[in-house]
Amino acid sequence: MAETVRDVVMIGAGPSALAAAIYTTREDIDTVLYEKSVVGGLAAITDVVDNYPGFEDGVEGLKLAEHLEKQAERFGAQIEFGDVSGIRQENGLNVVTVDGEDVQAKTVLIATGSDYKKIGVPGEKEFYGRGVHYCATCDGAFYRDKRLVVVGGGNSAYQEALFLTRYATHIDILIRSDVRASEVLQHDMQKFVDSGQVTLHLNTSTDEIVATDGRVSSVTVTENGESHSIETDGVFVFVGLLPNTDFLKDSGIELDEVGLIKTDAHLQTNLPGVFASGDVRSGATMQIASAVGEGATAALSIREYLDNKKD
Amino acid sequence: MAETVRDVVMIGAGPSALAAAIYTTREDIDTVLYEKSVVGGLAAITDVVDNYPGFEDGVEGLKLAEHLEKQAERFGAQIEFGDVSGIRQENGLNVVTVDGEDVQAKTVLIATGSDYKKIGVPGEKEFYGRGVHYCATCDGAFYRDKRLVVVGGGNSAYQEALFLTRYATHIDILIRSDVRASEVLQHDMQKFVDSGQVTLHLNTSTDEIVATDGRVSSVTVTENGESHSIETDGVFVFVGLLPNTDFLKDSGIELDEVGLIKTDAHLQTNLPGVFASGDVRSGATMQIASAVGEGATAALSIREYLDNKKD
Repeated sequence: MAETVRDVVMIGAGPSALAAAIYTTREDIDTVLYEKSVVGGLAAITDVVDNYPGFEDGVEGLKLAEHLEKQAERFGAQIEFGDVSGIRQENGLNVVTVDGEDVQAKTVLIATGSDYKKIGVPGEKEFYGRGVHYCATCDGAFYRDKRLVVVGGGNSAYQEALFLTRYATHIDILIRSDVRASEVLQHDMQKFVDSGQVTLHLNTSTDEIVATDGRVSSVTVTENGESHSIETDGVFVFVGLLPNTDFLKDSGIELDEVGLIKTDAHLQTNLPGVFASGDVRSGATMQIASAVGEGATAALSIREYLDNKKD
Repeated sequence: MAETVRDVVMIGAGPSALAAAIYTTREDIDTVLYEKSVVGGLAAITDVVDNYPGFEDGVEGLKLAEHLEKQAERFGAQIEFGDVSGIRQENGLNVVTVDGEDVQAKTVLIATGSDYKKIGVPGEKEFYGRGVHYCATCDGAFYRDKRLVVVGGGNSAYQEALFLTRYATHIDILIRSDVRASEVLQHDMQKFVDSGQVTLHLNTSTDEIVATDGRVSSVTVTENGESHSIETDGVFVFVGLLPNTDFLKDSGIELDEVGLIKTDAHLQTNLPGVFASGDVRSGATMQIASAVGEGATAALSIREYLDNKKD
């Protein structure tokens, strides 16, 4: 086991952890971030971020991720690639297992985010961000006066489809078996079905997302056993969230029913000295602005925790 | 009274309200902001913002404020100058009094921020941001290996002075009468007094902040009745916060003991449809990143509230 004890180990290097690291490192708190895939998280693989406050004409997701990374590194953040498989508490310290090695830390920030569940059909990965989307709040506004397809029949699919009615001229909702959305949401949706703005397709599997000249143009479906094609300008998939919390299963950290981490008002989990922020936190908005704001708030909580520990 | 009912009236046009407006207007929620002094709030009068995530080399406060304003206006936010004197609820609507006129709104976001209390001595206003500061988290890092003066003897002064010990070679703390900081903080401070890094000056009034070539160089004080001068590179004043909540005194909105607005996890106050975000909210961090993140979160809560109201 390493002899050194880090002030804070951050798990993940998306917008929330990078924002937190800007704060901690600027205050000379020794900070290391472990990222297992992409520095910048979902932001880095987003085409254009239109609503991150401060960039009046929007900003490429990759650019924003690079700005955040460089800003954190300017103050001394150490960003490492590494896969965290567990957290435990031992002798009043946190022990984080990274690529099989133990790293000791006075505090931990979990900011591993959540991923959107995929449907796994041809075209989904290829046209991600160019016609295939997972967040109506983020990308709905790009579809004013366009046709859309929504995939999913649960609460989130209905909520997001209702939200998209303010932009799209017509929405086809593709539901694999039966509607699982609440009565209230179904009632709200009925108005749009009656007006013709929304068409529900039950017992309908999504088979392929098809593009013309590099932009999504239609979706091939099997509806009640028959294959046909639906023209569209974009596809929004809402079949669930996958919080990146599998590695916490033996940690004793409390999760909510979806698998997101529960925190108090200071963003501390039920384990003292272990904090969580951003899209992995229960109550997350899946918005970069919120994730960044929570990262800053978590950093101030971490500083206070470390200061109190000194005595 | 005006016949029109606004979707959301935002009180204040600082970073938190502007971030919220970027979100609401992008979703076609009719939004008006009333600002009584400076669009951009405290950010607009900050020299350099070093830690707002996304600007790797920092950004001028005024520039950041302009970006936020233009981004909100790009999506259709209406920013008006106006002084709000009260909020009341009538017939299921919120009524906001602006320059004596009533404006009806389905929802309200209070984002009026807080100001730092001033000591009101010559030089304080003139050198604000160029040697006179009110936020150690924001500006402490500019004083690595420099001498500092801290004004104040309460908890916040002690906390911030302790924080500044990580940067400054020496700190003189000027306390008008007696120390009011907690025993714990006094105990923590004693270590730095013993080591000589901190000097406490009791019964000491701060008379003038003096500059040489436009930068703060000393402070004139009266200590135990005798006037003398203390050399310094900067002055941090921590004599309290002034939440901008006077106009809420008859509103029934719950405030905490400092006068900040209490909210739930969705940033709603005790009045339905009335939300609060940023530095006016109980638990505020006085950080632009947090204020912006809360603005985005509040906007999503407002959207949900409006959607539920539609039925």
